[in-house]
Parts: sequence; structure tokens; C-alpha cells
Amino acid sequence: MSTLRYITAGESHGKALTGILEGIPAGLKISSDDIDGDLKRRQGGYGRGGRMKIESDRAAILSGVRWGKTIGSPIALMIENKDNKNWNEGMLPLADAEGSISAVTRPRPGHADLAGAIKYDQQDIRNILERSSARETAMRVALGAVTKRFLAEFGISVGSFVIQIGSQKTAVKSHEMKEKELLKTFAQAEKSVVRCPDEAVSKKMVRLIDRAIKEGNSLGGVFEVFVTGVPTGLGSHIQWDRKLDGKIAQAVMGIQAMKGVEVGLGFGMGRKFGSEVMDEILYTPVNPTLSKGGRRGGNVWAGFSRKTNFAGGIEGGITNGMPIIVCAVMKPIPTQRKPLRSVDIITKKSSEAAYERSDICAVPAAGVIGEAMVALIIAEAFLEKFGGDSMTETRRNYDSYMEHVRKF
Amino acid sequence: MSTLRYITAGESHGKALTGILEGIPAGLKISSDDIDGDLKRRQGGYGRGGRMKIESDRAAILSGVRWGKTIGSPIALMIENKDNKNWNEGMLPLADAEGSISAVTRPRPGHADLAGAIKYDQQDIRNILERSSARETAMRVALGAVTKRFLAEFGISVGSFVIQIGSQKTAVKSHEMKEKELLKTFAQAEKSVVRCPDEAVSKKMVRLIDRAIKEGNSLGGVFEVFVTGVPTGLGSHIQWDRKLDGKIAQAVMGIQAMKGVEVGLGFGMGRKFGSEVMDEILYTPVNPTLSKGGRRGGNVWAGFSRKTNFAGGIEGGITNGMPIIVCAVMKPIPTQRKPLRSVDIITKKSSEAAYERSDICAVPAAGVIGEAMVALIIAEAFLEKFGGDSMTETRRNYDSYMEHVRKF
Amino acid sequence: MSTLRYITAGESHGKALTGILEGIPAGLKISSDDIDGDLKRRQGGYGRGGRMKIESDRAAILSGVRWGKTIGSPIALMIENKDNKNWNEGMLPLADAEGSISAVTRPRPGHADLAGAIKYDQQDIRNILERSSARETAMRVALGAVTKRFLAEFGISVGSFVIQIGSQKTAVKSHEMKEKELLKTFAQAEKSVVRCPDEAVSKKMVRLIDRAIKEGNSLGGVFEVFVTGVPTGLGSHIQWDRKLDGKIAQAVMGIQAMKGVEVGLGFGMGRKFGSEVMDEILYTPVNPTLSKGGRRGGNVWAGFSRKTNFAGGIEGGITNGMPIIVCAVMKPIPTQRKPLRSVDIITKKSSEAAYERSDICAVPAAGVIGEAMVALIIAEAFLEKFGGDSMTETRRNYDSYMEHVRKF
Amino acid sequence: MSTLRYITAGESHGKALTGILEGIPAGLKISSDDIDGDLKRRQGGYGRGGRMKIESDRAAILSGVRWGKTIGSPIALMIENKDNKNWNEGMLPLADAEGSISAVTRPRPGHADLAGAIKYDQQDIRNILERSSARETAMRVALGAVTKRFLAEFGISVGSFVIQIGSQKTAVKSHEMKEKELLKTFAQAEKSVVRCPDEAVSKKMVRLIDRAIKEGNSLGGVFEVFVTGVPTGLGSHIQWDRKLDGKIAQAVMGIQAMKGVEVGLGFGMGRKFGSEVMDEILYTPVNPTLSKGGRRGGNVWAGFSRKTNFAGGIEGGITNGMPIIVCAVMKPIPTQRKPLRSVDIITKKSSEAAYERSDICAVPAAGVIGEAMVALIIAEAFLEKFGGDSMTETRRNYDSYMEHVRKF
Repeated sequence: MSTLRYITAGESHGKALTGILEGIPAGLKISSDDIDGDLKRRQGGYGRGGRMKIESDRAAILSGVRWGKTIGSPIALMIENKDNKNWNEGMLPLADAEGSISAVTRPRPGHADLAGAIKYDQQDIRNILERSSARETAMRVALGAVTKRFLAEFGISVGSFVIQIGSQKTAVKSHEMKEKELLKTFAQAEKSVVRCPDEAVSKKMVRLIDRAIKEGNSLGGVFEVFVTGVPTGLGSHIQWDRKLDGKIAQAVMGIQAMKGVEVGLGFGMGRKFGSEVMDEILYTPVNPTLSKGGRRGGNVWAGFSRKTNFAGGIEGGITNGMPIIVCAVMKPIPTQRKPLRSVDIITKKSSEAAYERSDICAVPAAGVIGEAMVALIIAEAFLEKFGGDSMTETRRNYDSYMEHVRKF
Repeated sequence: MSTLRYITAGESHGKALTGILEGIPAGLKISSDDIDGDLKRRQGGYGRGGRMKIESDRAAILSGVRWGKTIGSPIALMIENKDNKNWNEGMLPLADAEGSISAVTRPRPGHADLAGAIKYDQQDIRNILERSSARETAMRVALGAVTKRFLAEFGISVGSFVIQIGSQKTAVKSHEMKEKELLKTFAQAEKSVVRCPDEAVSKKMVRLIDRAIKEGNSLGGVFEVFVTGVPTGLGSHIQWDRKLDGKIAQAVMGIQAMKGVEVGLGFGMGRKFGSEVMDEILYTPVNPTLSKGGRRGGNVWAGFSRKTNFAGGIEGGITNGMPIIVCAVMKPIPTQRKPLRSVDIITKKSSEAAYERSDICAVPAAGVIGEAMVALIIAEAFLEKFGGDSMTETRRNYDSYMEHVRKF
Repeated sequence: MSTLRYITAGESHGKALTGILEGIPAGLKISSDDIDGDLKRRQGGYGRGGRMKIESDRAAILSGVRWGKTIGSPIALMIENKDNKNWNEGMLPLADAEGSISAVTRPRPGHADLAGAIKYDQQDIRNILERSSARETAMRVALGAVTKRFLAEFGISVGSFVIQIGSQKTAVKSHEMKEKELLKTFAQAEKSVVRCPDEAVSKKMVRLIDRAIKEGNSLGGVFEVFVTGVPTGLGSHIQWDRKLDGKIAQAVMGIQAMKGVEVGLGFGMGRKFGSEVMDEILYTPVNPTLSKGGRRGGNVWAGFSRKTNFAGGIEGGITNGMPIIVCAVMKPIPTQRKPLRSVDIITKKSSEAAYERSDICAVPAAGVIGEAMVALIIAEAFLEKFGGDSMTETRRNYDSYMEHVRKF
Repeated sequence: MSTLRYITAGESHGKALTGILEGIPAGLKISSDDIDGDLKRRQGGYGRGGRMKIESDRAAILSGVRWGKTIGSPIALMIENKDNKNWNEGMLPLADAEGSISAVTRPRPGHADLAGAIKYDQQDIRNILERSSARETAMRVALGAVTKRFLAEFGISVGSFVIQIGSQKTAVKSHEMKEKELLKTFAQAEKSVVRCPDEAVSKKMVRLIDRAIKEGNSLGGVFEVFVTGVPTGLGSHIQWDRKLDGKIAQAVMGIQAMKGVEVGLGFGMGRKFGSEVMDEILYTPVNPTLSKGGRRGGNVWAGFSRKTNFAGGIEGGITNGMPIIVCAVMKPIPTQRKPLRSVDIITKKSSEAAYERSDICAVPAAGVIGEAMVALIIAEAFLEKFGGDSMTETRRNYDSYMEHVRKF
């Protein structure tokens, strides 16, 4: 059985989103604030729709945490949909409420609408779009925030920034950065309304979004997620489904609207000769007078290291101690004020696609969701390797392994 | 429990590769020839190393098939490593054989070598590289061939072609092709030594590989996998790990040396406005005089359809009846005749990386492996939706669903 | 991936129990009442402690159901712990509340207390007992009730009754009963305060419980769960973990306080010769003038059948169309008013075990929980075999298979 | 993802049984002999049929082991079916061989025959019985033997003995024994042809089997599996499917012909008052001058302990440091020389069940299979808790936890 597992539930305008995360060791300090910070980050970013002003998400911890610490039992979180109160009977579980709002019958291209309605045999597309909506990712971010808290205890940080929105692209390349540089770039990005570390490009992105708003259009883009402090040895080469890059790819591609994922240099690899893109191996003797290196979370400062990071921290499906670099592309928001051509599923007449209130550009938020998904995967691989039912036990196991890494 | 599951075992120079595939319904016609054809395709391609001449892989069916048909029980396949006989005691399970060949101690950048040795605490890197080697993918191709046979019964075809090797790239764009065009392009690619459908570019690719051979260098590239005849409704939007694009991303990224995966227009989406890349929805009335449409495997010829396929056949994690288009990048083969800088794990002295016999370019083969992994994922999603323990039952369920799709 | 999956969360005196059930097809009619009925049954039974009077459990449907029908997305349920308001800060997630009630330090034999405290490194056993408490089963019953509703659509019923409490045992043998008899026996048991179908024995059981109450002691016993209307062919012989009896055994043994599980004649099999306990195979020609037999949910009334049911409806890990008969033993409630000898985990001094308010006998409730767990397993096997994303699709697949069974 | 996983394949008279076990840490010493010993034990026992004389099973290690040690990659084992050569074309995968032996059409009550044929839509029951046959358990025993080897490194032993065959039953009660006594009883049982530790009862069992042979009848019985040296803290109370007793119940009930499973006192619990069957908690101060206690594998000799073991080593789904005691009942072998009444699936005529060569009593062998299944489950729970990719790492983690247990 998987050590860590997690599942979410909830419709976009239903009563609440619910999530259960199981397998976090007992004794981890955690509070709602740790979660709400990321929920707020997910709701921000220039180019968001009206809903973000209605909701200010907060996660209620229903179980698994007592007196500020996890107790080993499943952590249940709930985020109320504040917008739900405007929906009256429209989303109630009660049979009596049937028909209280009219059905959505004109599927929106680019969404699960049509395929979902056919698959689940629904005449009201609302029964599909309520769950396929990116609203669901609020709970993923909440669960991811818990695992970030966990990883932070071992010096592991997960961050992201936007590198492209539409035609505007920064030259920032995270696979060329050291850990400190990554964290600094991240801090810079957090100040930008589009979460782009490049100030000049940020402004151009804003202008491009303004244009899209004006034209009733939408935009996508590209973001990068990085992880610093990762120990060598997470993931495995021994089976197709134990490779860490594969798991990360699933988790990130599985976010609404993602159409591509890269690790390290990614598609840039295709153009290169082998001699240009391998991360050669160096060795710095371990200084025996230094105190325990476990906290460092990598083998970079001593022992084996690499000068470059084309591989993005993963070789053969295993972390190699360098920062993990993941890049993902988000397609433009498919819902548009200037509607697309569609067909009414009842009348079969050609018509404009339905319009649900929507964002114009959500790439900055997508980066935050990417962080959450990557954090969940790293935490899973971490717990698989180190085991442990309490933080003290996991810590002991981790420290003694890091000692082994130092001495190897 | 997953309906379909599969696992492989085996070292590169060990006695044999083994694989078990469980969940294929009873009554599927299958023979070794169905499998060996793909094994041969995997071994071909311009730029392969010496081993491909030694081995000519054949899969022995050890169980699960009787008298030419599956019987519902797990299918076990074995591929003997013909090269194994040259290894004498080097790979034996016997303790007595210890030390019969010398240890590999200089990890090769770009491989699992160093991270694997640290993780599994090995002083002889051979204990890592034997399993991390792409030799393992022969068994994935074999298992994938069984699922291709299964999918073919429902009119579903999986193919691939190479679109880039190093700096040479064709302008062929599969997300712009109709099903027939894809199959035709595939047929053309099968005639090329680099599996590229563009004859002129093929020649340039060969020349580039020749240059890499001469310089002791290596090359990567990009291939596309497509699936035609896919019914609307595989995968699901309801949970992060049920999205079909996520599963495909994991399966493809989990192939040795892959560094990026795209669906449909992929990273091209990042540059576009929403109005440019949505696949608008059309409807062609179903002709009631036509015979049953189940065999068609899609909703293209009648009912709902799309003019474009930017989405690559998947919206909201669900197939929409258009061809599935997956694109992946393979990094250059990391093992090089002109060796990279490394460090001996025993002496900690700087030294050249070990050299294991290797290919110069394996992108054509990688496409075949990509086909296998995508086929396994599609078959899993297919069986999850349609159930069935015999081909007659799965067929009944599929046909009645396709009738529903036609009428929707 | 498993078609159906479910997970629960929640501490006994925390804010709420939460549960998520994923994989129920869209279009199933369901209301809170369907769930609350079983929640009430779980809270009943002679010999329950004080808490049952405080709480009157109701399940709130947070998602997955709209206007009285499932919509395919995950079903989230919440049961508030009404007792929670009496606990003030004792169970809050807030760090500030730490120490607001005193720690439990004297582990109770027979509970997870000591092993759990050691495993999760806890000095306050409350952090273990809050989750290990049988309170958690309220959510299992709720989730099970949803699957019962699902199974009912296919004519499948799940019920239970008590056959033994302490030394008092009825001679009722469900593996000797036909479906109608089972349902009648069940109806009778529902009238008994101890859920025993045998009126005379019921009275003796009540007297025995009275004695235990008076003596500050506790009692266990034995209950049987049956399933009628099961189609032939659920579960499988092809792999150790696909056998339906194995899955049922896990689900039932995994209920708090269970120490044994039997299928059919169970341990009685050990004493017999083979000639005495095999269910010989009969055949009744199918009457072609009868209407479709799908609704019947078994092959009993026509086609193949058995006169006896020693096997309890499962042969080779597969249902054979006869009623499923499962029997389980519950140990006496370990918490006792007359406390057991224990050791304080802080002082290491010998002392009496802690006393948490508790039942004297909960076998009648355990039967209801057993029903839920068996229903969840049967629904999982059902959906694995028949697939389907909507009730109409699952129904079509089921009906066409039942037609096959009739004709076989 | 589960740390440990395993799957088997193979028909009874096919070419070979295959098994893959993944997740055993690197560096475990293992040889074929470690496996073959248990394969031989599985083939022994008084009352076996003719096949046991034909076959003398040996496991070939195809991968995962090099020079006498595991290397972390999946372990593939193969057991050739020596009997296969007598089957000529009867079990070949080739389509040409179709019809070379005649079909089995008269299903045997008590087997998967009829339900399997209906489920998988087979007209030749051989396509079911070849996999449902207990022959498959040879591979489970082989995989289990690898995990026994692993557990032995941590002082954990798994054994079994027979306590009942038909009406003959010994008074031996393993839940009343200390570890030493269990191991001694096991040694005694190994000398008995029916694997019963009670010499007098052994003789009676042999006589009873003789009678069954003479009468063309068959017998079942009861065996117990025990595990000594188990550390406190395997399994968990936090979720229904993490409880160790549930997992053991599945694994044991999932063995062919099992109809009941108990832990500790089992069904005996139902008759008792709570005051009679709880394992009170004692404490013996840890002697600080003793060397590290990790090897001991339990908290019995110092620290917390219990005088009795009614619970069979598991409370709240978690091991409590006492020996694990599991009891299982095997039904009589359903295939009988004096055949049972059945129906031909083609002609629908009443007829005698088919006769496949079979054992008269296989309870002694069933105990060995039970050991294997329990060992696999314990190893899985062990690796989930302690993690580790190499034996040195798993050992470090285990030792430091045992130090924690000692100090708790």
C-alpha cells in the first residue's frame, strides 16, 4: 500500500471542497495559516475573473491535527465555497431542488464538457463542469501545503515562477541556477502580479493580458517549478512506474489545462549533441570537522556534485541531489467572452458555447498548483524511502541516510 | 484494484527479461508473431550500437495463452538475453561467482549510475546499470504489443514517427492530421531507417548521425505517438490521478532518457490566444440507414466532431474522439565513446566515465517504446470503462456504448 | 486504478467524520435518508454505552450528488460529532489549546493504545484512541449505505443478524437458507434488540448482557452477513489478491474487534469429509417464454443451480450465484468498568487501565458495520466486472451479461 | 505506491510458473536453496496425489539476484512444470495445437470450474482449472521464501503446524505459547508426516487419511501459522485497509480452499467475557547494561510485555510485540475419486463431475503456503514502516526504532 495517499472531492459551486491526506507522520507542526497562505497565492495573479473577489479561501482542518501537531491519522480538510450561497437550490443534493436552475447544454470547446457529458450520460453539462472546473485545485493546493510543511522540516523547498505568458517570455533559465539563485528568483517572482521574476517582462505580460481582456480573448503560458534541498535517491529506476520523473509528469500534466511537461532542459535536449548536455560528476572531499550535513538536503556542498543541471535533478528516474526543475505549459483558458462555435446537445443545433464566468489568464495560479502537485509527489517518494510513523523516526532515518550519502 | 496491471523484471545481461500482464479478457487471438514484430522494430533504426546485431529478440509466451487465445489468466512473457552467454559468471545469481568480472566504479553522467549506487548502497555500479539500461524496454514493447493486439479488435491503432533528430526537424505536424493521414504518414515512416516520414529530412538525419558516430558523440530527438479510433470517454476529470493525459505523461516520461512530453499542440499552446487553439464543436446528423457504428471507434464520421485537433484528443482528462497525439523528447544517449568527466566512487579520484557499449542515436526505437507505453495506458482505461472478462463481453459493452455515443 | 475507492477520516471526539467514495456511476438515486437509516441501525442494539444517547448520526452530503442523483464525481460525506461540543478545546487543531485536557497515559489492553503510542511516538494515548475508536465505523456505514443503494438497483441485498452473544447461541444457520428465507430471517432479526432472529435466544442474550452490565464486564459474539441476488462471476481465481473471499475477509477482519471470519460452513469444513460438503450442480432448463432474467441477480431460478450452499456463494474466489454467507466473531469490548491491569507509560508504574466511556456489548452494531464493508467489496467487484460510468451504461452491461448467464 | 509487490503467473500443466517480487532491499543474501527447501515442504505431507511424485520443484532465479545477493531490482523466479512434457500440445500457446486434447465440460463442485467458465465465457473448463489449481501456490511459496529470508535477518521467524484433519484434532494451542515453545512445537511438527506436533494425533490423522483414500473421499482440516520476533508497530489503526489483521486475513483466505481465518483466540472470543480474554500489560525495567536489543525483535524480554496472547499479537490492527497467531481452515479437497453430481455445460445433461488427478488431503502443505502468505504480508508492513533501499539502510532504521521501543 502506498505510504502517502490523497483524494479530493467537491463541485465548484457546491457546498464545499473536501480533501483527505493520509500518511503524514505524527508530530508535524501545522496550522491553518500554513495552508491559507498558499490558498491566497492560488487566488492571486493578474488576469483572474470575478470569482476570485468573492472567495477568500480558508481551509478548515477537520481531523488528523490536534493541538498544532499531526497525530498520524488521516488529515481531512474542508474549504467552503462561499459562492455557494448565491446558488440557492442549484447545487443541492436534494431531489426536490431538481430543475431550479436551467441546464447547460452548449459544450465549451477545450473543456471536459462534451466528452464528459457523453461518458457520464448527462443532459445537463453542469453535472460535468462543476467538477472539471479548476476550482477543484484549491484543495490540491491545500493538501500540497501540508506536504510542503513536511518537506520544509528536512530543508526541502518547493517554489515556482512564470516564464511565459502568450508571446511574452523571459530568458530566465532555472536549470542553469544554483539553489540560492533559484530561491532568490522565486522571491522576486512573488513580488510580481504575474509571478514572473523578470520585471520588464512582467510589465509586458500585464499589457498583453489587458489586450486579451479588451478583446474578450484568453491567454496561456509556461511556468517552472523547482525543488531545492532534495536528497539523492528519491524515486527508482527499477520499474516503469517508480521513476520519479514519470510521477511528476503525471501529477503536473493532470492539472487542468496543462498540455506539456519538461524536466531540466526538456525539449531543448532534442537539438543537442550528447557532449553538450550531460552533467559531469565532480567530487569535493567532505570536511570531517563540519557538523552533520543532513540538514543540507543534498550532496552539493561536499561529496559528489555537478556543475550543470541539464537533467533537472533526475537521472534514471532517481533524484541526483541537484535541484529538481520542472516546466509546464498551460493552454489559454478555453472559456471566452467571445464565444466559440459549439452545438447544443439537446437540439443538435449549431450555437455558441456556454459562458461560465472565467479567468482571462491563470498561469500565475497554475504555478502554485504545480508546486502543490510536485510537493505531494516528492513527499510520497520521501516517505517511501525513509518510512517512519513519527517525525522523530522519519528524521532519524533521514539523518542516518544523509550520513551515508556524505560518506559514500 | 486496477483491471489491467503489468510489471517487468530482468537485467540487461542477465538470463532473461520477464514480464507479467494481467487483466486482458479471455478469447483474444494472439501469437508470438504479434509480439516479435514490434520487438524487431525496437531493435532497428539507424545509429544503433553493436548489441542490436547480437540479439534478435523473441518473446516466449509462458502462460495465459492456450491454443492461440488468451484464457483470462496472467500472461507471462520471457525474452532471453542471447548476449548472456558471453557473460559467463558475470551475471549469475550464485554467490560462488562473486568477483568473476571487475566492478564498474566510474559512474556515467546522465545515467542512474551514481544516484542508484548511493541509494542502493552498491560499490559495483553494474548492479544498478544492468536494470536501468534501456534493454528493459524490450519487455515493455512485448507487453505493449499484446495490448495493441487487444485494441486492434476495437479498431484502435497506435503508431509513431520521428520528427526530430538533433538539429534536423521535419515540418510534419500530427495534430493537424486526420486519422487516415496519420496512418499514411506512419506507413511512410516505417520505410525510413530513422522512422521519419519526411524523406528529405530522413537523409539529413542519417548524415547527422554519421557525423556523431565519427566524432564519438551521440544524439537525441523528438518522436510523436498517435492513437486512432479512440472512443470518446476514456479517462476522467473527477480526480487528479484519473486524467488520461496525466497517465500518458507518466508512462512516456518514464521511458529511459525522456525529458519532456506534450499532448496535442503542447508547448505551442503557451504562445497562443485562446481564440486560436480551441477545437470548435461540429455536428453531422447520424445517418440512420448506416449499419452499426461501433467498429468506427470514434465519433468523427457522424455525430459530434471537431475540425481541428489542437487538444490532441484529450479534453479535461477525457478522450474526445479525435486522435490522441503525444510528443516526447529523448535526450542524447549519455554513454559516449568520447567519455565524460566523472569520479571513481572507490578512490574518489577524478576520472573518465565508464564506457558500456551503446547506441549513438535511439530515437527511432524510442518511438516504438512510446507506442507500447501509450497502448498499455489506453488499454487500461478502455478496460476500466468497459469491463468484461471475455472478448465477447467487452465487445458487447463497447458496442452498446458506441450506440449510445451515436445517439447522444 | 481501482474503479471504486473510499477512504475515511476523523477522530472520535473531533469536529466531524469525513469520507470520500469515488467511482459510483452517475445517475444513481440517493438521499441522506438512505444513509441515515443505517447510521441509526449502527447506533442501536441492547448493551450500548451512554454516547449512543448523545449522538444521533446524520450524514451531510457535501458533493457528488445533485438534485437527488449521483453525477459521477467523488461523493463526500460528513458526520458531525455532536459530542464534540462537550470537549471544548480538548480536540482542537490549534496549538494554543495544548494541555487543555489531561493526557491518557494508562493503555487499555485489547486496544491499539500501547502499540499505537509506541509506533507513532505519542505520550498522550488520546492521540491514538481517538482514531482507533469504533466511532470511525459510522463513516464506513455511511459509505456502505451508498453502495447498498447502488447494489439494490441490481436486485442485490445485503443484510446481517446476530447468532451468538457470549455463551448464548442460536441454531440458525444461514448457509442452509434459500434467499427468501435469508431475507425473512433478516426481517425478524431487525425486530430484536440484539438483532438475533431467534426470539427465545434474544431474551437470553439480553439477560446475559444485563449480567455483564451489573458485573462491570463486557461481551462479544458472532454475526452473519449475507448477500442475496449476487450474479455469478464476481471476483476471480487468477491472482491471489483478486479472490473475492480474500477481499471480504480483509474488509470484515479490518473492523474493530473482529478476530475471525468465515465463508459458508467455515471452520465446520475442517471436520467433514469431501463427500459431505460439496454443493452439487443442478440444471433447470431456462423457460424461453419468461421475460429477461437480468433483474433476478443470480442463476438460481433457472439454468445452473445448487441445492446446498456450504461454500457460502464463493468457489475459487468467484461468486457462484448462491447467496454469499460471511460469519465473523467480535471479541468482548476491551474497555471495562472493572479495569484491567496496565502500566502508566510515563511513570512505568503498574496501574489500572484508563476508562473511556464504552459499550458493554456491540455485536448487533457490528453486524451493521459488516454489512457496509461487504457491500463496499461487492460493489467494487461489480464495477470492476461491468464497468460503466452511468447507471444506464452499467445496467446495459449487467443485463447483457445476465442474458449470457441465462444462455450459458 | 506499495513498497513491496508481487504477482504470479502460470497454468498447472503449462510450461512454467513465473513470479515477480519487487521491493526487497539490495544486499540480502539469498540462494535457490533458501527457496527450494520450502518448495519441497509444500510438496510433502501424507495424503498427496500422484503428481507430487512426478514433480520436484526447483525455482530458477531469473533476475534481481547477482552473486548471491539481491541488487534492488525485481526478483523474477521460474518453476518449470516438469509434468508439462506429458501434455504434448495440450497446453501450448500455438493456435495450431487447438483441439489436440479433449475439452473438460463437467464442472467439479467446490472449484472455480463453473463460475469461472461462465465469467470468462469458456466452453473448455480446462481454461479455468489450469489457473485455479493449487499448483499456482508453488510460486507463492517461492516468493514467500524470499521474504522469510529477509525477515530472518531481523530475527523474525514464520512457521506453521497442523492442528486438525477431519475429526482428529490436537489440543495444542499456539496462542498460549511463548516464542520458544512455538519454535519447539514447530520443530516437532516438521518431523510428522502430517505436520502435526502431537505424535499421537498424527497417527490418528494418518489412519483417517488412509480411510479417506480407501473410500475415494477427501479431507480438510485446520492449521496455525505463527510469527515470532515481530516488532511492535507493524500495521496501523488509521484506515480500514491498513490494519494488519485484515491484510493477513485476505492473504490467508485467498489461498485455494480456505474457508475461515482467525487471529489469536479467534471464534473462541465469542463465548467469553471481556475480563477473561484481555492481555494485561506488564513492564520489566530495561537493563541498561544489556547490549542493544534490536535483534530481539519484540518488546518481550524487557520493557512492556503481556502474560497472555489471546489477541494473537495484533491489537487495533497493529502488532503488539507478541507472536502473531493465525489459524485457518481448509475445506476437504473437492475433487474426489467418487465423483459428485454435476451437469455437462455443453449438453446440459446431468453427469458426474470431471476427475482431475488430485490429493486426498493437503492440509500439511496448506500450512506451508500459509507461512508464505503471512511472510509476504509481514515483509510488506515491515518495509512500509522502516523503508530503506539497502539492507544496511533498513537495518539502521530498524535498529534505531528498536532502541526507541526499548526506551519508550
